[in-house]
Amino acid sequence: MNDLTHFNAQGEAHMVNVAAKRESHRVAIASGRIRMAPATFDRILAGDAKKGDVLGVARVAGIMAAKRTGELIPLCHPLPLTHVAIDFTPEPPNTIHCTARAETVGRTGVEMEALTAASVALLTIYDMVKAIDRGMTIEAVQLEEKRGGKSGSWRREPTAHP
Amino acid sequence: MNDLTHFNAQGEAHMVNVAAKRESHRVAIASGRIRMAPATFDRILAGDAKKGDVLGVARVAGIMAAKRTGELIPLCHPLPLTHVAIDFTPEPPNTIHCTARAETVGRTGVEMEALTAASVALLTIYDMVKAIDRGMTIEAVQLEEKRGGKSGSWRREPTAHP
Amino acid sequence: MNDLTHFNAQGEAHMVNVAAKRESHRVAIASGRIRMAPATFDRILAGDAKKGDVLGVARVAGIMAAKRTGELIPLCHPLPLTHVAIDFTPEPPNTIHCTARAETVGRTGVEMEALTAASVALLTIYDMVKAIDRGMTIEAVQLEEKRGGKSGSWRREPTAHP
Amino acid sequence: MNDLTHFNAQGEAHMVNVAAKRESHRVAIASGRIRMAPATFDRILAGDAKKGDVLGVARVAGIMAAKRTGELIPLCHPLPLTHVAIDFTPEPPNTIHCTARAETVGRTGVEMEALTAASVALLTIYDMVKAIDRGMTIEAVQLEEKRGGKSGSWRREPTAHP
Amino acid sequence: MNDLTHFNAQGEAHMVNVAAKRESHRVAIASGRIRMAPATFDRILAGDAKKGDVLGVARVAGIMAAKRTGELIPLCHPLPLTHVAIDFTPEPPNTIHCTARAETVGRTGVEMEALTAASVALLTIYDMVKAIDRGMTIEAVQLEEKRGGKSGSWRREPTAHP
Amino acid sequence: MNDLTHFNAQGEAHMVNVAAKRESHRVAIASGRIRMAPATFDRILAGDAKKGDVLGVARVAGIMAAKRTGELIPLCHPLPLTHVAIDFTPEPPNTIHCTARAETVGRTGVEMEALTAASVALLTIYDMVKAIDRGMTIEAVQLEEKRGGKSGSWRREPTAHP
Repeated sequence: MNDLTHFNAQGEAHMVNVAAKRESHRVAIASGRIRMAPATFDRILAGDAKKGDVLGVARVAGIMAAKRTGELIPLCHPLPLTHVAIDFTPEPPNTIHCTARAETVGRTGVEMEALTAASVALLTIYDMVKAIDRGMTIEAVQLEEKRGGKSGSWRREPTAHP
Repeated sequence: MNDLTHFNAQGEAHMVNVAAKRESHRVAIASGRIRMAPATFDRILAGDAKKGDVLGVARVAGIMAAKRTGELIPLCHPLPLTHVAIDFTPEPPNTIHCTARAETVGRTGVEMEALTAASVALLTIYDMVKAIDRGMTIEAVQLEEKRGGKSGSWRREPTAHP
Repeated sequence: MNDLTHFNAQGEAHMVNVAAKRESHRVAIASGRIRMAPATFDRILAGDAKKGDVLGVARVAGIMAAKRTGELIPLCHPLPLTHVAIDFTPEPPNTIHCTARAETVGRTGVEMEALTAASVALLTIYDMVKAIDRGMTIEAVQLEEKRGGKSGSWRREPTAHP
Repeated sequence: MNDLTHFNAQGEAHMVNVAAKRESHRVAIASGRIRMAPATFDRILAGDAKKGDVLGVARVAGIMAAKRTGELIPLCHPLPLTHVAIDFTPEPPNTIHCTARAETVGRTGVEMEALTAASVALLTIYDMVKAIDRGMTIEAVQLEEKRGGKSGSWRREPTAHP
Repeated sequence: MNDLTHFNAQGEAHMVNVAAKRESHRVAIASGRIRMAPATFDRILAGDAKKGDVLGVARVAGIMAAKRTGELIPLCHPLPLTHVAIDFTPEPPNTIHCTARAETVGRTGVEMEALTAASVALLTIYDMVKAIDRGMTIEAVQLEEKRGGKSGSWRREPTAHP
Repeated sequence: MNDLTHFNAQGEAHMVNVAAKRESHRVAIASGRIRMAPATFDRILAGDAKKGDVLGVARVAGIMAAKRTGELIPLCHPLPLTHVAIDFTPEPPNTIHCTARAETVGRTGVEMEALTAASVALLTIYDMVKAIDRGMTIEAVQLEEKRGGKSGSWRREPTAHP
């Protein structure tokens, strides 16, 4: 047997068989943040429907990306998401924090959907303001919590991989 | 005028007009890394065609994602990439570093293509080994260098946003 | 609370949570029409497997588009359609009427799938004959009927928005 | 020969050969509108980053759809768009008008890209507010103007197909 | 009635209605092979993580293609796959045999998913080595077995269409 | 150096760098066939706009698939096709032959586009009539000819891999 479930005993990649799993309600929450120059941060926060809503566009991009996770991540199961939400929290003076939540009623978890949503939302922020700040950095994209399924709940320890 | 080029004077998002730009050879290099438990790191490095080639699958995923950047990032121009390459460098005891390079001959840069390739390659590593380590973190996804186009070359300063 | 379900209390877009809804059989019927010069109308109707089956191509395009609704409409839930059908009715002397029907067994309705199918079918007719008639107009794309789900059945009143 | 360029002499659909055409700057402008109950109209106009920016989401959806026109319309050539913009104009008391502009430097026109952008933008408005008004109607989706290419410029006559 | 289920009584294509079918566990196995020059065959088999893992890349491509079958085959139902696996068997001196297995729990079979996975895996082998052997041929892409659903099990007779 | 151009010197997959290649007119022609029971063959040939145009739907599917080759084949360059055509020739008593032609003006060839178009067209025929003949086999999918680019013209020898 292979401890990495995405490979068979011969080390060949496959989409793992989940037919025998029961459908259950699955939730995953991922987070990440983008760090920038303080002037860039101020510019984004000043944004609204009049001056350009960077976070509004990024939120839509993250939600849409969650739906396409199965096309991007080779061994991910395609699944019908029942909920996706993206929240941004400004952390002055120079960071925007992103939380992405994905849910389904299905046979596999939605960790990758939440992580993909957060990643693409942050990449979109980068794209929208890169004309004034190419040096921005995306950091700490990680799973915060998952619930549902046979392996049950998991929650990040505050000190994991310090 | 709006200093954020992805918005017009009314603050409305648009795909910026590049018709008047000359086609030129564009290069962008992005990087990022994923940090994990040391045992996970050892397991990935032990991988080969016999035990499961995590990095080989992640490399393919990153290359394929670069080609779909225009579908994921709302205001990105679609463009015909002329080169994509993904390199992984193990950084013992617990980190895998990823460099993604994208090129085109076109009217806009390929920064987002390189960043998307790196992000999806790292997300795929996460997916392949999450069964043994859910706490992995993706870090420091950022542009390293870009060349070509009217704005010319840019290279990350070692100390940007310290 | 927000009366527009696609936004949360803060006015942020999200994909609304439907996990708690029961799966049920959902049906939606949408319609639309394309108006053209009478000579164009005659040309399309003369079409068959020998002279070029405009409506046959448009029907396939509409069915395929229905399957991709979740990729096009940002806050639509992806769902496994169980039926899609497109019907065209010529309305002499210058109009082709289109009806699109979509069905699923799921937690959300398929109104957008039916509307997207009708829209893309009509756009495809435009594309196929635009070489001889650029002035064609797509009109009255609207929901006719929906069934299933908690909100139950709805049928267009003949005089809505006259 | 077949007067419908999307078919060959045998009436078989094909993607027409444009290799011999010169690359030129192409522009297309399409329009359409969505009619609704006056209360729905007021609700959308009240929208902003605080109460839910319906038009902001629809604009992003239209731009993204323009990039995927070649996937939706069977015989459309794929092409690298150099500009996409969507404008909404409220027409009190009950209508929102949409103008979509697409540009490329290429061998074929972008009429279908502009029409697809307008259609999907209007469909997205429908989706965002259908919870309060299912009876909305999309009307008058049509080409307004195109420039560039061998066939040159075309502009809609005010009275076409009255 | 039409004996070809993908057409209605008028001969118009539609996505057949499966809402009334019960969900059941579906399995399909397809196969195919690619024939090449013996030197090409030797080169592929010598491949590993050091010299280039042709079959590893092809396996990933086949799995990813299975997930997109509903986008490629016009009247296929989209469905959430629960398992995809691709196996390659070298048949010296000049042939590589491919078996693709697809599974779902759903209302329609997954024959097309298995056939698409095999086809794209073999096309990818072609792409990876075409620089040294353009004459390769893909042969005998066919369904081997299917199980589940109202029509029950089917297994290829060794002598079908000899 | 690696004789397989899709790998670098370390055996890692990459999308080969074509930026330095000149744009030129590229043509590729691929073929394949599907063998079936004679009754199935007769049924397909009897098809027309009244009884169900199997070949018309398959032709559209093949053309649309050609446009998505870069999404399916991992290391293929995305490129703007300038022409795609699919021809079917009945070969009584039991075979339908398919020829797919793809063209572009670009920096890489379109062999994979032609092969993908032929494969998906044949798979679609399978899908459309599988209800009456599951045993059909797709055979001899191969490149017939390619022109353009630095490597110039290539034409299949009648006796390649006999």
